[in-house]
Amino acid sequence: MPRRLYELCGADERLRFSPFCWRVIMALVHKQLPFESVPWHFCEKDALAFSGQEPPQARKVPVLEDEDGTVVSDSLEIMKYLDRTYPEHPLIGTGQARARLDFIRHWSETQLAPAIMTCVIADVHDVLTPEDQAYFRESREARLGNRLEEVQDLEAGKERLHQALSPLRALLADSPFIDGEGPGAGDYLAFGMLMWGHITGRHVLLDEDDTVQAWFERLLARADKAGIEHVRAADINGYVTG
Amino acid sequence: MPRRLYELCGADERLRFSPFCWRVIMALVHKQLPFESVPWHFCEKDALAFSGQEPPQARKVPVLEDEDGTVVSDSLEIMKYLDRTYPEHPLIGTGQARARLDFIRHWSETQLAPAIMTCVIADVHDVLTPEDQAYFRESREARLGNRLEEVQDLEAGKERLHQALSPLRALLADSPFIDGEGPGAGDYLAFGMLMWGHITGRHVLLDEDDTVQAWFERLLARADKAGIEHVRAADINGYVTG
Ligand SMILES: N[C@@H](CCC(=O)N[C@@H](CS)C(=O)NCC(=O)O)C(=O)O
Ligand SMILES: N[C@@H](CCC(=O)N[C@@H](CS)C(=O)NCC(=O)O)C(=O)O
Repeated sequence: MPRRLYELCGADERLRFSPFCWRVIMALVHKQLPFESVPWHFCEKDALAFSGQEPPQARKVPVLEDEDGTVVSDSLEIMKYLDRTYPEHPLIGTGQARARLDFIRHWSETQLAPAIMTCVIADVHDVLTPEDQAYFRESREARLGNRLEEVQDLEAGKERLHQALSPLRALLADSPFIDGEGPGAGDYLAFGMLMWGHITGRHVLLDEDDTVQAWFERLLARADKAGIEHVRAADINGYVTG
Repeated sequence: MPRRLYELCGADERLRFSPFCWRVIMALVHKQLPFESVPWHFCEKDALAFSGQEPPQARKVPVLEDEDGTVVSDSLEIMKYLDRTYPEHPLIGTGQARARLDFIRHWSETQLAPAIMTCVIADVHDVLTPEDQAYFRESREARLGNRLEEVQDLEAGKERLHQALSPLRALLADSPFIDGEGPGAGDYLAFGMLMWGHITGRHVLLDEDDTVQAWFERLLARADKAGIEHVRAADINGYVTG
């Protein structure tokens, strides 16, 4: 059977914006493994029963179903599985390389994620199906203790994002990618987070002349080359970007 | 001849507070290489002529003079030299491990350094010799465009430091060290920055129950075990810490 990636999507199923799913998309591109994308909405917990994630409310994407029927969930577990099963072009590496990747993962999750959330959390809501919108608002507002529209603050978020990206920006002065001469898991973890904002946001989050933007576009070009679609909400709705 | 490390020190030569020198001290401990510390003050540019750093105003520590007379300056260059010359217990590693270390280095320099600077820049001034105080004030105030006493803001600095440490704090929930089960260069780069604040500051910068503090103390215990002194300004002057 074909390799399948279950992916979060918006009301318009061309909108794929999960940071964790983008990590895996880029990992599959990296390994040159073709796959079919299966669109998934937050409220379709039943459709993920096969993944073994329990209880149902704990079911999340990405979930990869490989050609031989192997099922793996969680972006990092999927990357580890891919390295074990398709060892060429290692994503994660071993020893110190693997340990240090964990630092980059935590940076992306503790610094990039809250900054991008501040930029786009209400915009994310707006791209969802009506049923998902209700679920997303209720679950996220309970977590945040505030209305999505109060949490979203584009200028504060962009400022925070700019700060959070300082190590990447400094690194790009000497190296084309986090993982060195070519991209690897270090790059994909950060890229996934930025795709969350890129796909859902009404505005561009980075300055045009930011070297991080150029790095982001280099990775986007790799996705393009592999035939991966990345339609933005701004493209569909005709929002003004800038 | 004995292995020598030229190190920045305060008016009291027991005060060793350079973040870049601490990286190398920990690297030498890691490799179990004994060394003699040679105290150096900012204004002693002539004493570093042998290091080949030109022009004189560009002369910086750490400088390592190895047993066979090899001279290396710059903390990262010294680590690379140590890995080449004493390959057991690699500090830096190769390939992805080396590339990802660079991310950690830039995080320590773009996020930890400015936060700690905000906590202690005037305290650093206060521990120097009178001649170094004049040089430090003039050079740093020109760079910062402000008086050292205006830049130092303990509460703002601690807040910024807490934020900057978020990836390390998250990582320590699953792993004892940045580099994995045992410490490595990833740990020493961050530790060095924190030692800058620890040695010069009048106050403790981390919360007592912060897991980063426990990690910091684990590394400090390794220095202790190797007989490395780390007298604090607060110990000498009897400042109240807290
Ligand atoms: N640690 C997981 C996180 C996955 C995750 O949070 N996925 C989100 C979509 S971005 C999800 O499926 N959430 C389901 C929900 O909130 O109900 C990974 O790395 O894959
Ligand atoms: N990139 C160097 C930086 C070394 C550095 O900045 N050293 C400072 C002491 S912390 C110094 O010697 N400064 C001399 C000066 O400012 O004149 C390294 O990693 O070793």
